[in-house]
Amino acid sequence: MSEEVSPGWIAADWGTTHLRVFAMEGARVLAQASSPKGMASLARDEFEGALLELIANWLPEDRKTLVIACGMVGSRQGWVEAPYAAVPCPPLQASAMVETPVADPRLSVWIIPGLSQNTPADVMRGEETQIAGFLAGNPGFSGTLCLPGTHSKWVRIDGGTVTSFSTFMTGELFALLSKSSVLRHGMADEGWDAEAFAGGVTASLARPDMLAAAFFSLRAEGLLHGLAAASARARLSGLIIGAEIAAVRQGVSGDVTLIGAPALSAHYLAALKLAGLDARATAGESLTLAGLGLARRVLTENQKG
Amino acid sequence: MSEEVSPGWIAADWGTTHLRVFAMEGARVLAQASSPKGMASLARDEFEGALLELIANWLPEDRKTLVIACGMVGSRQGWVEAPYAAVPCPPLQASAMVETPVADPRLSVWIIPGLSQNTPADVMRGEETQIAGFLAGNPGFSGTLCLPGTHSKWVRIDGGTVTSFSTFMTGELFALLSKSSVLRHGMADEGWDAEAFAGGVTASLARPDMLAAAFFSLRAEGLLHGLAAASARARLSGLIIGAEIAAVRQGVSGDVTLIGAPALSAHYLAALKLAGLDARATAGESLTLAGLGLARRVLTENQKG
Repeated sequence: MSEEVSPGWIAADWGTTHLRVFAMEGARVLAQASSPKGMASLARDEFEGALLELIANWLPEDRKTLVIACGMVGSRQGWVEAPYAAVPCPPLQASAMVETPVADPRLSVWIIPGLSQNTPADVMRGEETQIAGFLAGNPGFSGTLCLPGTHSKWVRIDGGTVTSFSTFMTGELFALLSKSSVLRHGMADEGWDAEAFAGGVTASLARPDMLAAAFFSLRAEGLLHGLAAASARARLSGLIIGAEIAAVRQGVSGDVTLIGAPALSAHYLAALKLAGLDARATAGESLTLAGLGLARRVLTENQKG
Repeated sequence: MSEEVSPGWIAADWGTTHLRVFAMEGARVLAQASSPKGMASLARDEFEGALLELIANWLPEDRKTLVIACGMVGSRQGWVEAPYAAVPCPPLQASAMVETPVADPRLSVWIIPGLSQNTPADVMRGEETQIAGFLAGNPGFSGTLCLPGTHSKWVRIDGGTVTSFSTFMTGELFALLSKSSVLRHGMADEGWDAEAFAGGVTASLARPDMLAAAFFSLRAEGLLHGLAAASARARLSGLIIGAEIAAVRQGVSGDVTLIGAPALSAHYLAALKLAGLDARATAGESLTLAGLGLARRVLTENQKG
């Protein structure tokens, strides 16, 4: 049961595997809660119940409370589909937000749509809200954003507009290879080796085409030369991140702004430095809340107007 | 129960997931049998039993029958470790073969060692026997062999000697991505689209560094443009094989000789043609038998001498 508070509105970050909710008063977080009831685990008629499990005692009986949600909750397999907005466009457009049908009279739920790119085909859901949050604090920004993660996004921004983006399956490849491939035999679940990571980055920057051979070489290094399991893990990460940076670096002009979890951003900072790119890191979660807050303000103003 | 025959010797192709045995008279196959009792499913003291399950009724009581085995059975996790022979060396050296301890007096079992390469670290087990079988039929061959599969091998041969090789995790990457990643949602279990395969190969030949982004684009193509599931599968295969060929093609002089299963070799032939490389295909299984037969002849001569 979540803490009893009476928020002005509720922010929801609803991804594939998790639901995180925040009881908000303006931009202030009064309380928060989370559950593993992500989009992938829910049938269409189970979303409202999953939300109420976390927020029921935040809802007064005498009025509707506005919930603003972003992420995979708006996908075709989600609660209600919020069709993608096609780039070039601003990261957040209140007119494209979608209201979900709800049974509980205390609820009013709106979902932020993701972004799509026609060619090369690409999509995002959730990151557009972080980008909107970042731009709210950095008006007039132009340049390159990198949002590392399961599906890392590289995003070009020009004066408040997302002009193009590319998604790399970096985090998912790392998880599959370290846990489900032949490499798992010589791979630690945790631990780190900064030098091995840098070696992997450097190898992939030089020969990104050799990635699938460099993977197998980790196994052979373990068998022949006793490569330590933590070093193998760090080098694998470096190989995959290095290939990602090799692919984008020609298109980057100026600094890279990283938006992500601190530990992962630190690895990217080290890798970008090896590629000769300057970068700075910004924490991701606060930007999601900033983006959801922006969406709430725009929606409320539209509804008044 | 396998057919009752009385072979002169027995050939065993014993990999990670399968055991295949052949009752042989010289180079002639009298009978064959197989089981899913690969190296990965067996503890050290279970190998002899797994072998006897298939060959017990091929064994006369009054003499020892020679069994020659190749593959992961000789790995550290196998029946007995047959230490790697380091390249440059011929693919098969009888002096490096290892006899396994057995309890059954009717058995004499020898394992062919794999090959290793110091830098870049690499290993093979099983393919060296196919290579030896190929060279037995093509004495004096120099050039490039490609053995496509779960872990595709590219091998340089110079006058009967393996001088260097590279392993690409091509087949394993394809299996992981098509069955266990986010791509599985838009991916068929079977079916093929030759044009989509060629498109994937061409894309990776031009930009092998973009592999991890091209993977995700398959998902986006499905969501945005309705990419068919069989086309997605073929394009994924093309992307991974194309990157493999992009990585090796500068090192290839002359034709490529493919050693592998016919269906997979046909895909590689198509992909190599797109890369401007000439290739010819040879069936793999008969070469394994030829290599095992060669090992048996050399071993028998050594024992006489």
